[in-house]
Parts: sequence; structure tokens; C-alpha cells
Amino acid sequence: MSVNVKDFGIENMPEAVLEEYGAKTKDPRTREIMLSLITHLHSFVKDVKPTEEEWFKAITFLTAVGHKCDDVRQEFILLSDTLGVSSLVDSINHDRSGVGTENTVLGPFYVPGSPEMEMGSSIVQKATEEGETAVANGTVYDNNGNPLAGAVLDVWQSSSEGFYHMQDENMPDFNLCGRFTTGEDGKYIFVTEKPAAYPIPTDGPVGDMLNACGRHPMRPGHLHFIITAPGYDRLVTHIFTNGDEYLDSDTVFATKSSLVGEYKETNDEALASELNIESPFLKVDFDFTLMPS
Amino acid sequence: MSVNVKDFGIENMPEAVLEEYGAKTKDPRTREIMLSLITHLHSFVKDVKPTEEEWFKAITFLTAVGHKCDDVRQEFILLSDTLGVSSLVDSINHDRSGVGTENTVLGPFYVPGSPEMEMGSSIVQKATEEGETAVANGTVYDNNGNPLAGAVLDVWQSSSEGFYHMQDENMPDFNLCGRFTTGEDGKYIFVTEKPAAYPIPTDGPVGDMLNACGRHPMRPGHLHFIITAPGYDRLVTHIFTNGDEYLDSDTVFATKSSLVGEYKETNDEALASELNIESPFLKVDFDFTLMPS
Repeated sequence: MSVNVKDFGIENMPEAVLEEYGAKTKDPRTREIMLSLITHLHSFVKDVKPTEEEWFKAITFLTAVGHKCDDVRQEFILLSDTLGVSSLVDSINHDRSGVGTENTVLGPFYVPGSPEMEMGSSIVQKATEEGETAVANGTVYDNNGNPLAGAVLDVWQSSSEGFYHMQDENMPDFNLCGRFTTGEDGKYIFVTEKPAAYPIPTDGPVGDMLNACGRHPMRPGHLHFIITAPGYDRLVTHIFTNGDEYLDSDTVFATKSSLVGEYKETNDEALASELNIESPFLKVDFDFTLMPS
Repeated sequence: MSVNVKDFGIENMPEAVLEEYGAKTKDPRTREIMLSLITHLHSFVKDVKPTEEEWFKAITFLTAVGHKCDDVRQEFILLSDTLGVSSLVDSINHDRSGVGTENTVLGPFYVPGSPEMEMGSSIVQKATEEGETAVANGTVYDNNGNPLAGAVLDVWQSSSEGFYHMQDENMPDFNLCGRFTTGEDGKYIFVTEKPAAYPIPTDGPVGDMLNACGRHPMRPGHLHFIITAPGYDRLVTHIFTNGDEYLDSDTVFATKSSLVGEYKETNDEALASELNIESPFLKVDFDFTLMPS
């Protein structure tokens, strides 16, 4: 019989697999990731002891997730989101030390290229019937509490019907999106509609998973921001809508109490006239603090 | 501000995610699998602390694996194979207690529907230039060491060029495949070609992964068997080729020393004449033992 035949089985897994990847993988970071992946993946399999049917079901599920991905749909991000992994990765990478505004997930609906706008503009290109006019307003500060000039706020949100512009063919491109740059006072202000809670797409395998797990697919209403300024950490965050019924069960585990903003009914004829809207209107005041990079 | 806002971050992950899935998932087995998955997945992420670029690379990799899957290619099985998971799942599900022949992985190249053949037939429909004629021969026993009648051996293998019939359009369907049923003596015998080592498909993301990890894509040569008999556990196994240079580094971690067979040069004019081949020929003697189900 041959010498040097390797025997693989439950007794020497994952050690034998780790030995192989550990010995052959040259790049240190790749090796670190592979060894950790193999360790935790084998622990999971040894823990749940899947039948062959269950293992094949997992293969079929992952294949369906892959097949659902195309240019405008990223089902693996949705899977990562709904398992809390995206939020965890975000948290790992953005410790703001209790000073800077907290980050939260980017989500799959950001498209670069929003139109540049003057402060006070409306990002509503096409109003929806249910949409309530809202003004978002505040100041971008640096970590010392000074107003930050030249900060760019890239904002986007879904409509009151729960769709982002690329999800709804009846919506103009970049509806409810805009890019604003702060002046010396660090202030921002723009007109929008109060964002509504909405379901993540459920017509794919991730929707099936949520269903099998008895979980709703809803996210509480939120306004997305990417705020950048030279010399500062990029801030990717939301303003969540105060009072939203899903603030305690965000399907993608991305809520943070520090990121909730209150849409207050505001009676201010002067500001309304300046912004070309009617008074009273809703107004959310929310300040951001960037951390040096 | 709103009450009941959940805060999610590295401090309470995965606990907060486990709490949600634990409370909502009704089916006990689904719950068990999901909680274990979330626990190990979050441990992996906390362990390697991926940058956002690395996390996105992982998403892109999994998406590419999914996109590579079609009717004849299953890249997620290949991924599971090359991480040792398929072999582990196999080992978990088929403890033969040191009595029955060991199982090993099914692999992605089994197609049901092989032609039924008489004992002594050749499974070679189209010979390859390099192919060495080989006779596979042995007895199927029950766990008490008695020959087992009525056992069906479903056999398949790649050609000496390393391709299975569905991978090579120049090969007839079910070339190097056959189904044999034992008589009272439990014996089986058929003619084939000595199987060669071959690479798993490397033109997809799993090939890229192996490459990044410095691993070759080779499997040692092997003959596949599924052996079934009423009242017995289905045996899915290989006969690995003695002396093969990849017996100590099977890229899918499926080798077992008990499954290595020796192809001996055999000078037996009578048997050669009976089998309609030339003498000398190669002959591998290998017995199987099934366990009651």
C-alpha cells in the first residue's frame, strides 16, 4: 500500500485542513483570514451536525442568494445585513470614542453621483401623495466643537412609499438625493419628505430566511448621509425617525439611539418662505461631529 | 426622543442578534442552526476584524461563486469541498465504527442513470490514448462478513485525461459509468481504465481562492462507488489509486488510507479472455462491507 496517505475525518478536522492552508498560504493576512474562517466554519458544522440533506439545503440557499444578485440587487449584502454582520463590521471599523457621530451601515441603495445643490434646496424631484414636507437642518462640527467648513453631505432616502429612486421606474433618477457643501458656519439645511419605514426586498432567498425565522423585513424610516471633509474620517450614518414603530426591531440591526432625530411640527413663516414651502412644516434638527482621520 | 430604540454595536453583538432570532424563530431545528450560525459567524468577524474593503471583497467573492453555478457546475459545493466542509459533513453522517467500509465525499460529478451492466462488462465506451486497461474486482460483504447478494454498485470515474463524461463533449454520455448487481457470491468485476489524478475546475472563484492560498487543485485518481442494498446503509466511497502523488494533499480533503487500492500488473490469460481484454492488465482487488441501516 502507498505511504503518505492522509486520513481526513471528524477526529482531525479542522486541524488537518488548518495545517494545509497554514503551510501553503504565503500572504499573512490571507492566511489569518483563511485559518479563522476554517476554524469557525468547522466549529459551526460540528456544532449543528447537519444531515446531508441540510447541508445540501445550505448549498442551495447560498446558490439562490448568488443568483439573485445583479447590477441593482445585492442579496449577499442583504444576507450580511439581516444576520447583523454588516452592522458589526461597521462598528468594528468606526469607533468614534463617544465623541464623533456614530456610523451605521451604508445599505445597498447608495449610488454615487447625486446632484450638487445649494443649501436650502429641495431633494424632492417628484412628490408622493403621502409625503410630508420636512426640513433637515443642523451643523457639522469638528471634534473640538468648531463648525466645519467645506464638509460635503451626500444625502439619500426612500420615498414615503418606501422605494429608492433606482427601485421605482416611475421615479426620476436621483429623486430624494442631493449633495450639499457647508460654508464657514458649518450649517446645512435642505427640504425633503419625512422618510417612512419600509421593507427590505423580500422576493429572494433572504426574504425566505426572514420568513422561516419569523422576522419582519422592516427598517425604521431614516435619512442616509455620507459626510466627508478633507482630513476627517468619512461619516456614513442615518438620522432615524423618532417614534417609528421599528426602532426596536430594525431588520438589519443598524439602529443606535444617538442617531434618532425628532421631526417637530414647526410654524415659521419666514423660513418657510425662504425655503419655498408652506408653514407649518416638519423640521428635524441634527448636528454631526466628524473625527480627524 | 423615542423610547425603545435598540442600540447595536460590537459591545452587544452577537447577543442582541441571537436574542432576536432566538425569540422569533419557531421551528426548533431552524432556531438551533441560526443561533449557531450567528454565533460562529460573528466570532469569525470579531476575530479577523475585516476592513470594509475586505468585507466587500468577501461579498464579491460569494457573489461570484453564486454566479458560477449553473446546471452542470456547482461552485458552492466546490467551495465546501476545498474548505474541508464536505468531508467533515460526510464524516459526521457516516460513522462506520471501524467495521463498515468508510464513506467519502460524493463529489459534484455524479449523475443518476448509469446503464445497468452484466458483471465483467467494460464501462469504457470510448478509450483514451493514455488509458491503461484495469480490472476492478472484489466482494461486497455484510457487517458479519457474509457475501451480500443484490447489492447494486453504481460506479463512475474520470478518464485518464481527467474529465467526467458531462465535462467533455467528445465523450459519449455515461462513458466510464455503470451499474452492477451482485449475485449470491457478493462478487463484482468490471473492466475500466486506471483513473488518473485530475484538477477540480479552476476557472472560477474557488480556483482563484486556491491560487491565493498556494494550494494545487489536484485530486488523486479514484474510482467512485455508490453501493446500496435493501436494509443496509448507502455506501458512498472511492477506491483511491495507490502510489498517486496527491494522496497526501487531496485538494478536497477526502482521502482515507483504508480506501487506497493497488493496481497490480496481472498476467492471467484465462481472465483476460473472459473479459475480452489483453494480458497482462492492471487489476485492483477491493472488498466493501456494508452496515445495516
